[in-house]
Amino acid sequence: MDERYVSLAHGNGGRLTRELIEEIFARHLKNSHLDTSADAVPIDLAPGDTPMITTDGFIVQPLEFPGSDIGALAVNGTVNDLAVSGARPQFLTLNAFIEEGLEFNRLDRIIKNLARAARAAAVHVVAGDTKVVPRGHGGELYLATTGVGIKKRDLQLGTDRIKTGDVMLVSGPVGDHGISIMLARESFELKGDVRSDCAPVVALCEALHNLAGLRFMRDPTRGGLATVAHEIAQATGTRLRMFEKNIPIRPEVQSVCEILGFDPYYLACEGRVVAFIAPDEADTALEKWRQLPGGELAARIGVVEVGKARVILETKLGGERILEELEDDPLPRIC
Amino acid sequence: MDERYVSLAHGNGGRLTRELIEEIFARHLKNSHLDTSADAVPIDLAPGDTPMITTDGFIVQPLEFPGSDIGALAVNGTVNDLAVSGARPQFLTLNAFIEEGLEFNRLDRIIKNLARAARAAAVHVVAGDTKVVPRGHGGELYLATTGVGIKKRDLQLGTDRIKTGDVMLVSGPVGDHGISIMLARESFELKGDVRSDCAPVVALCEALHNLAGLRFMRDPTRGGLATVAHEIAQATGTRLRMFEKNIPIRPEVQSVCEILGFDPYYLACEGRVVAFIAPDEADTALEKWRQLPGGELAARIGVVEVGKARVILETKLGGERILEELEDDPLPRIC
Repeated sequence: MDERYVSLAHGNGGRLTRELIEEIFARHLKNSHLDTSADAVPIDLAPGDTPMITTDGFIVQPLEFPGSDIGALAVNGTVNDLAVSGARPQFLTLNAFIEEGLEFNRLDRIIKNLARAARAAAVHVVAGDTKVVPRGHGGELYLATTGVGIKKRDLQLGTDRIKTGDVMLVSGPVGDHGISIMLARESFELKGDVRSDCAPVVALCEALHNLAGLRFMRDPTRGGLATVAHEIAQATGTRLRMFEKNIPIRPEVQSVCEILGFDPYYLACEGRVVAFIAPDEADTALEKWRQLPGGELAARIGVVEVGKARVILETKLGGERILEELEDDPLPRIC
Repeated sequence: MDERYVSLAHGNGGRLTRELIEEIFARHLKNSHLDTSADAVPIDLAPGDTPMITTDGFIVQPLEFPGSDIGALAVNGTVNDLAVSGARPQFLTLNAFIEEGLEFNRLDRIIKNLARAARAAAVHVVAGDTKVVPRGHGGELYLATTGVGIKKRDLQLGTDRIKTGDVMLVSGPVGDHGISIMLARESFELKGDVRSDCAPVVALCEALHNLAGLRFMRDPTRGGLATVAHEIAQATGTRLRMFEKNIPIRPEVQSVCEILGFDPYYLACEGRVVAFIAPDEADTALEKWRQLPGGELAARIGVVEVGKARVILETKLGGERILEELEDDPLPRIC
């Protein structure tokens, strides 16, 4: 059994750095593009299409939680930003900030799962870098991933395409990721079966590409569904009306939220898509989603209206409340 | 005067995150490609050439030091990895892991300098992400940058092209960056005029592109000149002979090294290039370098020989010593 720990010397660029990279990172992430000895690597991008790029950092705590871990999260978080932008994810780069003292076994398990997530999302990790920070100057492991994908030139998506009457869809229940992290933290005594929804949304996004009425997609991560709704209301300058009774939330997520006083609309998802689409194509989009893994509970949850830029939630009891922009952090280090 | 500090709430994805990004990151990094509201952004890459990608993390301490700071370092570190690979750097993405409590003013100064370095290297920062980690779980500020550049298809560089008799060149004095960091740390009482050599090496690298005898380039960062020499000896399976009398080192760097017992060959540079070139083109390459800013003290420092894969240093006194692979870390958090 491997009882080694990452030491500061693993970050010095010498023999130990090379061994750490070869034993853990290169071993799991091996692919024809990855060259850990190169300063930069070539990437093949289909000519004629538009290369798209995005980047994301990950500081989730704990590193491992029901249904996923920081490794898979670092892949899916970036893959999904490309997917909702209309791009097919192709290449990732990976940065690891490792805190002195992290167990080799734990790092190995996480990078192995990261590699599995990359295969599942059909992306290649082609370049990376590791840094080791002293004990007490890190959070066990922070990751950053940058993704490059390819978008068809004729696929146009943007908040500027959203019109009054457009429908807001969500591909599945919200809040699972946030609640799974919360339950994984020792300070909470609650037990539950909630697992993170962390998954690639590439297939869900591509399923809608052929619909001419597709306006815009976004994944409701940090800040949750309410934050996406706010961003849209702000960007379009219109009122967004959401229907509480239609927003899918698992009963166990709802229970935990009620006990702890969290609003599920502000909790992060890591495998969901919000789409804005012309009203006459909303049902077609929902049908497509419901046939795909992760899209079974897709729902029509809102509509774009004329009015002051804000988000109105129609409650189950028939009342209305304004979903305010997130101020305090309900749950830090969720991704 | 701005006396604000970054709080955990600046990392929650809501209003404060948006303000932090707009007030500091977007303000300084503004360019036509950057869209802080988009999940992913398009990048224009010249058709016909080869896109290259690289990534690097930065944990230097202190954040600001004579001659540069972590912001400029994060640009030049990644830009230089593209440049030595033969690519012209074009686009960067930026990740910031900010520790709770960092002063707004300090972050602002660093991101301003990062933006200045990006302009100097002619790259656009097109996408970014910020995360805030709790006090005691970070190092004030960690950065990661990913760079995309374009390499001419007919430019072939690689350690597999290095042959016996090839000459090793360095573009300038080594160890300046490492010593400047050391002097900036309060624990050292020494004062000196050493400034970091942190700079883009794009022009130095491009100056050699037309030389058919150019085999390979690398920037001697973490682990220094000796580590690059080792990597080459290992990769080519040949003996590398280096000449101590020819290796440029500033007298003030040499003095500090002697007092503190550091070997300058293992100290990081952040604005130097090592090149391997056919012997008949070495002088031409040196002439080109010496005409460029930062290349004035370029020198011929070694030769590739037949023999067991190792690095031999011919000392000034005519003796020989083996430059071993770096084991202990002489100076952590140098980049």
